[in-house]
Amino acid sequence: MSFLLGVPAAILKVVGVALFALATASTAMYAQTATKSLAERLGYARDAKLVIVHADDLGMTHSVNAASIQGLESGLVTSASIMVPCPWFPEMAEYAKGHPDADLGLHLTLTSERVFYRWGPAAPRDKIPSLVDSNGYFHLNWTDTTRIDRNEVELELRAQIERALGMGVRPTHLDSHQYRLFENGKEIFQSALRVAHEYKLPLFVVRDWFADRPYLEASLGPDDLVVDHTVTIEPGVPPEKWADFYSRALKNLQPGVTVFIIHLAFDDEEMRAATRERATWGAAWRQRDFDFFTSAEFRALVREQNIKLVHWRDLAHAAR
Amino acid sequence: MSFLLGVPAAILKVVGVALFALATASTAMYAQTATKSLAERLGYARDAKLVIVHADDLGMTHSVNAASIQGLESGLVTSASIMVPCPWFPEMAEYAKGHPDADLGLHLTLTSERVFYRWGPAAPRDKIPSLVDSNGYFHLNWTDTTRIDRNEVELELRAQIERALGMGVRPTHLDSHQYRLFENGKEIFQSALRVAHEYKLPLFVVRDWFADRPYLEASLGPDDLVVDHTVTIEPGVPPEKWADFYSRALKNLQPGVTVFIIHLAFDDEEMRAATRERATWGAAWRQRDFDFFTSAEFRALVREQNIKLVHWRDLAHAAR
Repeated sequence: MSFLLGVPAAILKVVGVALFALATASTAMYAQTATKSLAERLGYARDAKLVIVHADDLGMTHSVNAASIQGLESGLVTSASIMVPCPWFPEMAEYAKGHPDADLGLHLTLTSERVFYRWGPAAPRDKIPSLVDSNGYFHLNWTDTTRIDRNEVELELRAQIERALGMGVRPTHLDSHQYRLFENGKEIFQSALRVAHEYKLPLFVVRDWFADRPYLEASLGPDDLVVDHTVTIEPGVPPEKWADFYSRALKNLQPGVTVFIIHLAFDDEEMRAATRERATWGAAWRQRDFDFFTSAEFRALVREQNIKLVHWRDLAHAAR
Repeated sequence: MSFLLGVPAAILKVVGVALFALATASTAMYAQTATKSLAERLGYARDAKLVIVHADDLGMTHSVNAASIQGLESGLVTSASIMVPCPWFPEMAEYAKGHPDADLGLHLTLTSERVFYRWGPAAPRDKIPSLVDSNGYFHLNWTDTTRIDRNEVELELRAQIERALGMGVRPTHLDSHQYRLFENGKEIFQSALRVAHEYKLPLFVVRDWFADRPYLEASLGPDDLVVDHTVTIEPGVPPEKWADFYSRALKNLQPGVTVFIIHLAFDDEEMRAATRERATWGAAWRQRDFDFFTSAEFRALVREQNIKLVHWRDLAHAAR
């Protein structure tokens, strides 16, 4: 998987890797023959095409918050997750308290990613030395030489969840910023899973990841939710092909639950400044995501392709 | 002094309190007859009118950073100070490293002030429990019932200075966000002074404050710098009178060193969102400060009134 991009490459190749997708879908269907599929547990036919349109990174900047709230309120973005350690988390906590029906999870965050605008942990930093740099911020990212202590990961994840609960957020699910909790080995994934179980929250895991990371499947219990597929855009897609990419992905959906992981923000001063060290997942990128997922074109595709938009809350209910 | 406004009321009444200002100036001149005045130590006549135009709160938001940098680069804003615990501190640290001649101090910060956008300490939060709330942020402000531990204050101040030094900032001076270090009694002021001495940095103190807070003068040693006067605008000034207020203050300057404490930002989306819970020191307020202090009117007043714009770096050199 691509470390640099922070996204498992295996899940990205929706365009042009149809054979792989079909193979994965077959495996998934085989594994589920004995039990009800997630779609069936949600009350749909086994071959229904269910989509969660999921906005990541809420709390990161005001621009992200404003665009994501607009996306959620359009009804076309169904779910989102919030970064508790980020400076604009209080704005999202306030929104969550005032909108208890909004389907908001926590985007568990262990890296600070950006260069000119940074954040640090929710736990006391002297308790989690492996997670912070010499200035007290989260590492920008983890490299092959970053030694992460799994106990510190658990401590920090609990601190983030406790702060969210303390500030009135009632999360519907958990996922992971920059995929750190999924891509860094069995121990760290199991730490995340342990914390998810403690708080009785579903942790975002995708069946399509199992082939590359067998420890994911091996760690899960029978009550853990597993999403079937995920789609996220990648840097190789030129800006003018943005809508094409998503449109093709929507027309080529496999049966089951597919999570579109998207990143919404406005291409404004704040967002350009916060992301200016590179174009990937930058301000213009996020504006393109916003433009597509709030567009009439997307709304029409959902209808034409007979796609059912669902929420993490629906999945959590189905799992109970 | 007004707690709510976070600004000592005694220093605010430049307009309409001429008698008070004259009385204070007389006291100051009396106290300095035996030694050279600060103006003289700077190489000017005793009756010279020296002004530091000082932008506060750098690091708070990108909008503050961008407006303050523009102000500094106009030459009309001479000095500024940076809030190390704030999310946009890394952007200012990068600027400071690339502009070693910029006159940048540290705006020591022990409160998080805002509701929807917040920050926490540079020190591990379990080491400074009296300074943080139950969610790990600095208190919004200190009230009569907030019990602050002076040892924790020192620990946090050192952590802020160490982070700044570690990230390449070479501060010219220290001051205090929301005046917390000056307005909260002898012990906390002496803690700030001790830290300033350790790092051999001048701490912003104004002679005009001594009457209301005798512990300030009593705590200072013979080598400590004391600025003569300060001017900052107050909520009572209607927006349309902004330029009038500053213009009158500049025309009525007393001899000696006067620090204009100003707050620059653009009235943009980020700043409006970050300050939306109240208008005081909000986005429009800061845009008005920016408009005046980068204006041709201000430039002309400086020339007409024979005002010398000086820097904290000049004061620090003079004190050595």
